[in-house]
Amino acid sequence: MTFDIYTILYIIAIIAEAMTAALLAGKLEMDLVGVFLLGWVTALGGGSIRDVLLNHYPLSWVRHPSYSLITGFAALATIIVARHMHKLRKLFLFLDAIGLVVFTVIGCQVALVGHLSVICVVISGMITGCMGGVLRDILCNDIPLLFRSELYGTVSVSTAVVFLFCSHLVENKNIELIIAMVFGITFRLLSIRYNWTLPRFSYRS
Amino acid sequence: MTFDIYTILYIIAIIAEAMTAALLAGKLEMDLVGVFLLGWVTALGGGSIRDVLLNHYPLSWVRHPSYSLITGFAALATIIVARHMHKLRKLFLFLDAIGLVVFTVIGCQVALVGHLSVICVVISGMITGCMGGVLRDILCNDIPLLFRSELYGTVSVSTAVVFLFCSHLVENKNIELIIAMVFGITFRLLSIRYNWTLPRFSYRS
Amino acid sequence: MTFDIYTILYIIAIIAEAMTAALLAGKLEMDLVGVFLLGWVTALGGGSIRDVLLNHYPLSWVRHPSYSLITGFAALATIIVARHMHKLRKLFLFLDAIGLVVFTVIGCQVALVGHLSVICVVISGMITGCMGGVLRDILCNDIPLLFRSELYGTVSVSTAVVFLFCSHLVENKNIELIIAMVFGITFRLLSIRYNWTLPRFSYRS
Repeated sequence: MTFDIYTILYIIAIIAEAMTAALLAGKLEMDLVGVFLLGWVTALGGGSIRDVLLNHYPLSWVRHPSYSLITGFAALATIIVARHMHKLRKLFLFLDAIGLVVFTVIGCQVALVGHLSVICVVISGMITGCMGGVLRDILCNDIPLLFRSELYGTVSVSTAVVFLFCSHLVENKNIELIIAMVFGITFRLLSIRYNWTLPRFSYRS
Repeated sequence: MTFDIYTILYIIAIIAEAMTAALLAGKLEMDLVGVFLLGWVTALGGGSIRDVLLNHYPLSWVRHPSYSLITGFAALATIIVARHMHKLRKLFLFLDAIGLVVFTVIGCQVALVGHLSVICVVISGMITGCMGGVLRDILCNDIPLLFRSELYGTVSVSTAVVFLFCSHLVENKNIELIIAMVFGITFRLLSIRYNWTLPRFSYRS
Repeated sequence: MTFDIYTILYIIAIIAEAMTAALLAGKLEMDLVGVFLLGWVTALGGGSIRDVLLNHYPLSWVRHPSYSLITGFAALATIIVARHMHKLRKLFLFLDAIGLVVFTVIGCQVALVGHLSVICVVISGMITGCMGGVLRDILCNDIPLLFRSELYGTVSVSTAVVFLFCSHLVENKNIELIIAMVFGITFRLLSIRYNWTLPRFSYRS
């Protein structure tokens, strides 16, 4: 069983997503099953929606049952480490940024392998990167963050565009990945650090 | 590239749905990505759910990437025209009615082509007509309008029944379409004009 | 047309789920279409999500259009019997427990027939058992019960594990079913009777 760099990054990403979801579950005082499930849906939901929309079966967690265990344990482990979490806040933001970017790039690749159009590649990247968080927010009865603030969606779209651009220029798959990841993570962390936001559309009827 | 009447009506419908969604996004003060995405989900979500449930791949926006661009631009254009929107309110209600009816009829046709049962044809029409709006309301953290008021669902179901009925009586596809559309749009506009509602079920435990 | 025991239990389960959903619709004062649709989604939504995720087409309500009629009529019939409902509360909790357990077992079987891994069998059971209720709660703009309280999810998971265990030990399919059902329904009813809950995870940032 060999791991390529994509698999390693993917596993880091699902762990990070499951942990952030578990923290949110803790804020809402969910029980253990709730923590487990919210972590699972957040980590694996975006990729599942993409695969269902693109008819890309079997889904990753069906092919690799260990992914379900990994996300579940990551969510439950969060309960234990939660009290030390504030010390790890920066590590966490960094892991979350890796999650967003890795998911986006993987989503693009699935669409590229399926020979989809450029627009669908970007959409596939964005769905994979962002939809897990959208499902999490819907289940927590909140307007998804994606629709309200931070540059979450913008980072995902622009990472997808950078990755797509590189994949036409560069032969080496790892170099594409590294450029897109460095770009995306830097963009995400800068947007958090400096509170970058997009203009809002305010309409009163 | 030739356009049949269905394609033209479909494009009008997705533009109308994206624009109404964008106005709602404006009321919630979403940012530009939020406006874009809410428009996209509202316009293309109902058909996507139908296609996923009926195993009808590839989805329309995968086959026609331009649809994603059209809905996205319609949503963003709404920001510019929003200040003149109250003057266009009637045009808008009319476009929205077209959207509901066209989506419903297209949903019925997809099921008819797949030789599904009469009940599934009606359900397919209703899912296509209404689910985009349901997704929009869920993402805006609201109980979907469909479940609460107006005759949205009723118009969709009865349009589906009329269309199905005509498709057994009439040979000419365009005549079916015209009858169902005139019926559905008239029903919808009258129900708005005269505040028609269905009886409510009120239960206290 | 012969009915096996699974079909009979399944029909009882969708009726029970549609009726509990209709009562919730009544609390929110939905109109008749809302009652019908919420019943339909709650009863058939969990199985639909499972089938879409596992690429198991056609969906049950496409194959058996009568299921849609049954759930719809059960939901509407609830309006008539609602005033006598408090007398039937215990029957109702019992039917609801049957629904949860039957759906879970059917979900496991679909995955077993598809030769999925043990983990996916349990997940498939849980999705089938619980997701209808999650959709219902999302459409009613509530944090799903599954994530908050009662042992709904726990009962579903443990029923799935018991069923899976029995299916390795016992040859006779009906005996598997009976053991899993007796276990699940007893667990569910006891958890309601004695207010069993799981520990909660409370986190404040």
